[in-house]
Amino acid sequence: MSDSQKRFPYHVRILCRNKAFTAPSTAGLCPGYSQANVIILPSKFAADFRLLGARNPVSCPLLGETKPGDPQVPEALAADSDVRTDCPSYNIYRDGVFAEQKESIETEWRDDSVAFFIGCSYSFEAALVKNGLPPRHLELNRAVPMYKTNYRLCPAGVFGGHMVVSMRPYRLVDLERVRDITRPFVKTHGEPVAWGLDGAKYLGITDLDRTNPDFGDPTEIQDGEVAVYFGCGVTPQLSVMDSGISGEVIGHTPGRMLMLDIKDEDVCLSF
Amino acid sequence: MSDSQKRFPYHVRILCRNKAFTAPSTAGLCPGYSQANVIILPSKFAADFRLLGARNPVSCPLLGETKPGDPQVPEALAADSDVRTDCPSYNIYRDGVFAEQKESIETEWRDDSVAFFIGCSYSFEAALVKNGLPPRHLELNRAVPMYKTNYRLCPAGVFGGHMVVSMRPYRLVDLERVRDITRPFVKTHGEPVAWGLDGAKYLGITDLDRTNPDFGDPTEIQDGEVAVYFGCGVTPQLSVMDSGISGEVIGHTPGRMLMLDIKDEDVCLSF
Repeated sequence: MSDSQKRFPYHVRILCRNKAFTAPSTAGLCPGYSQANVIILPSKFAADFRLLGARNPVSCPLLGETKPGDPQVPEALAADSDVRTDCPSYNIYRDGVFAEQKESIETEWRDDSVAFFIGCSYSFEAALVKNGLPPRHLELNRAVPMYKTNYRLCPAGVFGGHMVVSMRPYRLVDLERVRDITRPFVKTHGEPVAWGLDGAKYLGITDLDRTNPDFGDPTEIQDGEVAVYFGCGVTPQLSVMDSGISGEVIGHTPGRMLMLDIKDEDVCLSF
Repeated sequence: MSDSQKRFPYHVRILCRNKAFTAPSTAGLCPGYSQANVIILPSKFAADFRLLGARNPVSCPLLGETKPGDPQVPEALAADSDVRTDCPSYNIYRDGVFAEQKESIETEWRDDSVAFFIGCSYSFEAALVKNGLPPRHLELNRAVPMYKTNYRLCPAGVFGGHMVVSMRPYRLVDLERVRDITRPFVKTHGEPVAWGLDGAKYLGITDLDRTNPDFGDPTEIQDGEVAVYFGCGVTPQLSVMDSGISGEVIGHTPGRMLMLDIKDEDVCLSF
């Protein structure tokens, strides 16, 4: 992939559509543009899923959705984009269990499929970098560590389950700046939900030496730093998997997101 | 108060304005119309409070707010209404501590005061009654029992704290109907957040014989019934009190709400 091909989300989507996108992750692509988590459900579950997002916006910030059966991504999010082909790859789950990974899902898309697009924390990470507070996993060139928690979502119809959080270590003295920088990103999880040993205890996270996250890579926490926990877009996927609904559910492959035409400032509240 | 005076919210607001409203509660007044919790803050805290609502919409469903310094309630909520006079009474808190109760707050209202209006569960209670599932406290002519919980809100700037829940006992066999009936009321707390012994344990509620709620009146739980817990509009008041912000904060007196011109169906999602 040449540098020019990385510059615009549309280029990346075309690469995906041509099954020519080979990178393990979309992290860092098209700086300044937003990316989305994708989840595709039968339309009979759409109202409950929409409500799961409305009741739990920190974990499940909904950016938009398709019409039932229409694979066109809303123009407001991405121009001329087909959700069946424009992610790098897809994870297919059947009856709540991972079944296979595919590069496109034309044959899996149904007349009653609805795709939901959920905000991604890459947006506020760029702002943290710009303000001299780069997340450790970026410095280490790793995936962000993510943890399942005991924190229950507000249930919505068939969906419930628990919050998943991502973790970035920061010095306590920098915590208020980290909160201030991430606060405006209301559509991409926003400011942290908890921090420190007290936060870990509340969330039920026991991996205090950071070596064994539930998803992503281990990170390094240095002397004087505390773990800072943020809402995470893996939450709605786990909620759907844990709900016990039968049939086929499709998500983007974690880390390999749908590239959007909207910019980070578009998912950021201006005060 | 004559029956005709109870019929329209505007009449009740005029009674309040003339300091002629004497009932202990607005529960059951003007059936079909919505009521609002009110909280009044200095404008420097408005952005954080707005965000507290956006991040915790089940506990803190924001219906609207005034312009800073302008006591006019938004026309979309109530016509020709002055927030300084149109609640039955007000509780004034200074530095987080209850100071006094007043019938109007013209002298307390400042150039930088902002009033927020928050949805109230009276709306879905009418729907429960209509569907043959009347909440027990209405049958007993008592206030709904409310409990402080261990469930943390997603913090928002200076505001954080814990969810307060209201409790209504139902038979387990009726739970799914109760969930279905209350689900659409997205602006007035919506479907329950937890239920049963498992729910009480998760929320940290130990008053299992229902004799000692933190707010409101005790209720009766019958054989075969479980406690069903809903988000509660007392939550944002407690969050503000517990935030440690200095200065004056004003709320409506609990149970004595602002009568709105909007109807229950206006705060109800149509699926």
